[in-house]
Parts: sequence; C-alpha cells; structure tokens
Amino acid sequence: MNKRSSKPVDEPDSPNSVGWVTPGRIRLATPEKPFTLEVGESLSDVVVEYETYGELSPARDNAILICHALSGDAHAAGWDVSATRRTASGRFRPMKDGYTPPRGYRTKKPGWWDSMIGPGKPIDTSRFFVICSNVLGSCYGTTGPASLNPETGRPYGLTFPVVVEDWVRLQALLLDALGIGDLYAVIGGSLGGQQALEWALAYPERVRKAIILAAAPRLSTQGVAFNAVARYSIMNDPNFRDGHYYSDANPDHGLAAARMLAHITYLSEEGLDAKFGRRLQDESKENPDFGFEIEFAVESYLNHQGKVFVERFDANSYLYILRAMDYYDAAARWGGGDLVEAVRRITAETLVASFSSDWLYTPDGCQELVHAICRTAKPVTYIDILSQYGHDAFLVETERVGSLLRGTLKARG
Amino acid sequence: MNKRSSKPVDEPDSPNSVGWVTPGRIRLATPEKPFTLEVGESLSDVVVEYETYGELSPARDNAILICHALSGDAHAAGWDVSATRRTASGRFRPMKDGYTPPRGYRTKKPGWWDSMIGPGKPIDTSRFFVICSNVLGSCYGTTGPASLNPETGRPYGLTFPVVVEDWVRLQALLLDALGIGDLYAVIGGSLGGQQALEWALAYPERVRKAIILAAAPRLSTQGVAFNAVARYSIMNDPNFRDGHYYSDANPDHGLAAARMLAHITYLSEEGLDAKFGRRLQDESKENPDFGFEIEFAVESYLNHQGKVFVERFDANSYLYILRAMDYYDAAARWGGGDLVEAVRRITAETLVASFSSDWLYTPDGCQELVHAICRTAKPVTYIDILSQYGHDAFLVETERVGSLLRGTLKARG
Repeated sequence: MNKRSSKPVDEPDSPNSVGWVTPGRIRLATPEKPFTLEVGESLSDVVVEYETYGELSPARDNAILICHALSGDAHAAGWDVSATRRTASGRFRPMKDGYTPPRGYRTKKPGWWDSMIGPGKPIDTSRFFVICSNVLGSCYGTTGPASLNPETGRPYGLTFPVVVEDWVRLQALLLDALGIGDLYAVIGGSLGGQQALEWALAYPERVRKAIILAAAPRLSTQGVAFNAVARYSIMNDPNFRDGHYYSDANPDHGLAAARMLAHITYLSEEGLDAKFGRRLQDESKENPDFGFEIEFAVESYLNHQGKVFVERFDANSYLYILRAMDYYDAAARWGGGDLVEAVRRITAETLVASFSSDWLYTPDGCQELVHAICRTAKPVTYIDILSQYGHDAFLVETERVGSLLRGTLKARG
Repeated sequence: MNKRSSKPVDEPDSPNSVGWVTPGRIRLATPEKPFTLEVGESLSDVVVEYETYGELSPARDNAILICHALSGDAHAAGWDVSATRRTASGRFRPMKDGYTPPRGYRTKKPGWWDSMIGPGKPIDTSRFFVICSNVLGSCYGTTGPASLNPETGRPYGLTFPVVVEDWVRLQALLLDALGIGDLYAVIGGSLGGQQALEWALAYPERVRKAIILAAAPRLSTQGVAFNAVARYSIMNDPNFRDGHYYSDANPDHGLAAARMLAHITYLSEEGLDAKFGRRLQDESKENPDFGFEIEFAVESYLNHQGKVFVERFDANSYLYILRAMDYYDAAARWGGGDLVEAVRRITAETLVASFSSDWLYTPDGCQELVHAICRTAKPVTYIDILSQYGHDAFLVETERVGSLLRGTLKARG
C-alpha cells in the first residue's frame, strides 16, 4: 500500500547500513547558562537527543547536518540499539530527566532517511560525518512540553515557551559542543527544509551548501488554515485539559483527527486516486454496506494513520511544532518583509527542489525563494521533480532525490 | 471580508425580490404508503419542506427545480415570513411532528440563491415557476435523523436509514403531488449539481434542461478522505453518544472542526491568500503574540464558521449528507461502472460549468462528465469559469453564473 513500506530495507549488518546506532544526549542549557528563546523566555535545562554517522575528518570539514520534519526525530539512519517495544498499555508519558523518550515505534524500522544515509549512499557516511538532532519542543529525547519543568517538577505542558526558529540556534550550540565549526552541508525536507534555509540565513559563514527540499520561505495561508483546524481538534478534545493530560487519558481523538487531516495534505489528489481510488476496504464486497463504519480503503488508511500516530507522538509537541510552522517567515525575519533583502545574506550554494504535485509546500512557494535568490544575482540550483506523491515525495522519490543529493554533495570544493 | 455578505440585497419590497415567502410542508409518505429508500429500508412518515416562486403556467411547462447543496435548504429566494430569531440558549432540538425546524439563522437573510431567483433575475420568476425542496436527511423541515421516529416516539439519530440518491426520487414525488409532470429545467451546484445530473439520468423524460454547476459524476478520493476526517471528528466527539444527543449537549466541537475543514475545501489556495494572506486578526499589532490563541485572520474566519454552523445545523444530518456525497457514483448507478453507458440515458440539454480554482469538484472531474456525454454524440455545453473563489465560486460568481443561466434558460423551445 504505502510505497515506503515496500522499499527494500538495509539490515543492520548490510555494508550499506550505518548499522546499530546509539543516540547521544547532551545538556545544552543549565541554570547557569540558560537557553533564551526568541519569544524572550528562557529554559534552564535543555537536553538534546542526536545521532551521528560516519567520522569527522581531522580537518573537521566533512560535517553534514540533517534536519527532520514535523513528526521526525534524531534517528535518521541505521538501527537504534536502545529501541524497545512499547508495552501494550503504553501511553505517552512525560520524560524522566529527559532520558526516557517513548520510542518503541522504532523497534522494527531503520531511521527515517536510511535510504539516503549510509556507506555508499547519496549522503555517504564513508565520506561525511552526519549529524541529526531532535528539535526543541518535540517528544523524542529533546526537551519539550512533556519534559519536567525543573521549577515545578511537573511536565511543562503549555507553559513551555513557544518555539519559532530556535531550532537552528540550538543545533548551532550542539555543533559547537561537538567541535564542529562549519557545515559542509545542511539538508532537510519540509519543516527540515525550512531549517536548512534558516541555517543559510542565520549562519551564512558556517554553511557551504544548503539543500532545501519541499519547503518554502513561509507557510501558505492554506497551510495556516489546515494547522488551525488541527489545533482546534486537539485543544477541544475534552482530554486535552489545557495541555495537562500527562497523568491521565491523552487527547487521542483530537490528535488523530489532526494527523488524518495532515496525511491528506501530504498526498496529492492524483496520488490518492492512484493508491485508493474509490476502492472498498473489503475488496470481496461488490457493494458497500451503506453505513457509517469504514467502507472505503482511503478511510481505513487515514484511520490507521491516526491510530498509530497517537501511540508515538505527544499532542502538545504537535501543537508547538505546528505553531513554529505557522510563524516562520524568512522575509520578515531577515529582510524586514522583503525576501530579496533577506536572501542577500546567503553565501551557501543553494539547491532547492520542489515536487510537482506537492500542494502543502507548492512548487510556486519554493519558487518564491528561488526567484528571490536569482534577483540577488547569486546562483541557485532549482528543480521541480515530477511526482504524483505530493508532499510525501521528498521521502518517497528516493531515486530522484538520491541522485540529486549525490550530485550536489559530490564536489568537495 | 466575505464577498457574499457585501453583495447588495434585494429587500422584500424590491421589484426584483420574490418578497415574503411561506414554506410549504407536505407529507409524502404515510404508514399506508411508505417511502422505500435505496438501501431497502422504509420510512412510514416523510414530510418535505419546500418553497415555490412565480406561477405555474396553464400548460404546466414552465417549472424549474432548484437543488440545494450540503448545508442548504428549501429557502432559495425571497424572505421567509416565519423566520424568527433563535433564543440565545437555542440549541438544535428535534423537530416536533416535523414542523419546527431550527431556522432562526434565516432572520436577516434572503434565500441562499436570491441573487439568481426573482422577477427579472436569471431564473426569472415572472416567466418560470420555481420549486426548491429540502433534501431527505437534512434538518430544515424535511424528515431526517432529528425527526421523531413514529415507532419509538424518539428522534431517529443513526437509526435513520442511509440516504444515497433518494433525494431525487422524493423530489419527483413532490412534483407529482404539485401536479407537475415535466421540468423545464433542473438546476443545482455542488451536491445540488449532483442531484441535477441524477435527475437527467433517472427521469430523462421529465427533464428538458439540466444545469450542473461545480459537480461531478462522483466525488474524488480526496473528497472521500476529507469527509472521513469530518466524520471521525463528529463521531468521536464525546457528546455524540452514537447519535443520541438531542436531549443533551450536542457534538459541537466535532461538527465545528468538520465545518472548518470543509470551508478550506470551499476556498482556493489563491482565494485564501488574497482574502487573508498571513494577516494577523488584530491588524493594529505589528507582531503576533506567539501563543496558541487565534492570531491569524484566517484562523479567526474558520473559527467563526465553525461556531455559527453548530448553531444552525444538526451533526447527524451532516453525517448523512456527507455519506450520500461519498456513495454517489453515476457510472455505477446507471452504466454498470461505465460513465459513457450511463449518460446514454440523458435526453436533456445539458450545461456543465466548472470553476477554475475549484479543487473539491475540480474542472477535471466535471470534464469527465462532459467527455462522456460527448462520446455519446450528444451536444453538451461546457464552460470552465475562471475564478479564484474555489468551490464557493458557484455561489459567489453571481454575474458569470447569472449570465450563463439567463442564456441557457432563454430559449423556451
């Protein structure tokens, strides 16, 4: 059904796999050295979960940072050695000291971009030192709304400060701690592409190549609208209780509805048609039952996506990350509202790729960025990849994206 | 904000208004003569609310049937004489004997297509006798899930039989009762356009002209997917209680989320951009507050749409009508899956209009119907109207739609 699940998987002992990996955890803010967010509030305890693959060269010039998307994590490649199966009754629980993230879901899957990262793969770990960290506000090991607030001893919930694009600043702190000055490349898709762009804008001197996939300098009005519905669903779930639900039932129905909706925006109309059409879930039936139970295959797919998501993601984290998506606006941040002014800062070689049927971060939106860079008389490589997989294409079109990455990363100059 | 609300309104005493109207109510099924639905179940009591404008000619050859869309009603033109303001605490209540529909919302508004229907208007009531009836399963006067089941004395709720395209058959019974054999024209947009198509297929001998706006022979997979999320939201609202909520709190949050989502699908991306962009709701603010309250104008618009909808619509009716939308498939019904075979039945002159930015019933979907009719070597008039108003365009583009209707209805031959 899902193209991704039918993809061949590199087992941990495959020569093309980075093998077993152990996530690292590092404390990047302390009461003595708090992390101040853009909104002005500070966190006195920030732990970041990250993974690395390959080896840093003696010249420290081969580092590549991978930025993950909305529901992603630091586990981009290989097999997580600490992954364990979730207990049957396992609900999302606040992290104890930031060290017990829920990640039973990883048990049987390699990292989310394992197809791209590994020895001999497009992001070749025999040449590059690859880093991926979980974003602030998420629920996969990095401090977020489910973490315990050291001042109260209780989970932050909605008292966690709103995150805008503090992600990149925290990643920079992580690189500092790892002794990495410059990045050979920063790469991301979707919300990860937004971070790659922000890297090129915020730290132009530290980025040699910026690879931005299926992302735009800001979310469209339609995107903000979909996020508004998702947020409404979560925050009006009676189990939400203003974000203080950790010790009780979680707002699963609201989060599931939000995720189902999101999945529609990740697929294209033509993709949905090709994948499901109006097929009934039970193909042995000639006619539907004419009722309110699940009948169509597409309903069953969405229900399943909602159901598995609430087992692996925290509703508060979802709210924080959606809001960061809403608020990000490269032109406003760096150009006083003028995107051309903003991108004058960029010194990295940029590659921008959109996907023809992506209607969440549309080719038009991506091209706004490309046009702006062109107007500064700087080179930018742009490709609109023909695909029916919609926004998901950046993860699904592994061959085309792979050859693009391979080519762009080839020249070590 | 909303183009429709800034439209000039014909007051009841205007020469272009049909003036004050009183809805009619007629019992079309009784225990002696039940109405059997397509799914096989029967209703022993069916009341239909309808309105008429203009006068039936002595030759009875000037009748036009108007079919309403999802959340519409029989009140298509003029001013409802029985409309009263809803009480402040007024929640949706089951109809007593089918005679007390909630329609306080009509107080200050003329009928939903008043711009098209009236003396001298495109659907000219000085020439035509115009009929519009509320569909089976709705909550505006025609029997639906909120009506009392005569066998139990309680509202049907989800025990109401699933409606597929019984609407048209019930409309035919209404015309019989009104002494109208043939229709000069049947006209509808969206779900109303689906009914106009079904009329041309089910009663070819009774329809001279079929005008189908922003509709298709079946809903797209993406449409089914959006409906699945809407249904999930409603049915998982804890107030839903399997549809038996009438004597208690209603599933307002679920219904509001469904409606907010629907409104995104009614507008186009470009329309949303033009109407709201990333404007803040409070335009006096230079920067957002960075929180989870409503900040963007588009959020406020959607929230408002959700809020007003739950005051005027019944969640069960919404479920029934969405499901009818899902299940309708003209090719399956009339051509064994082959649309060309199906449309061979059509003898009416057909006009099909799509709207360029409509992504719910896309131009592509409308063109499937047009192509099929062409392949039967029958004439069909088709136009794709350039508009940024998305699916809403069939209601908003009054000038273009008006001139189209005027021209098509002109020739009385």
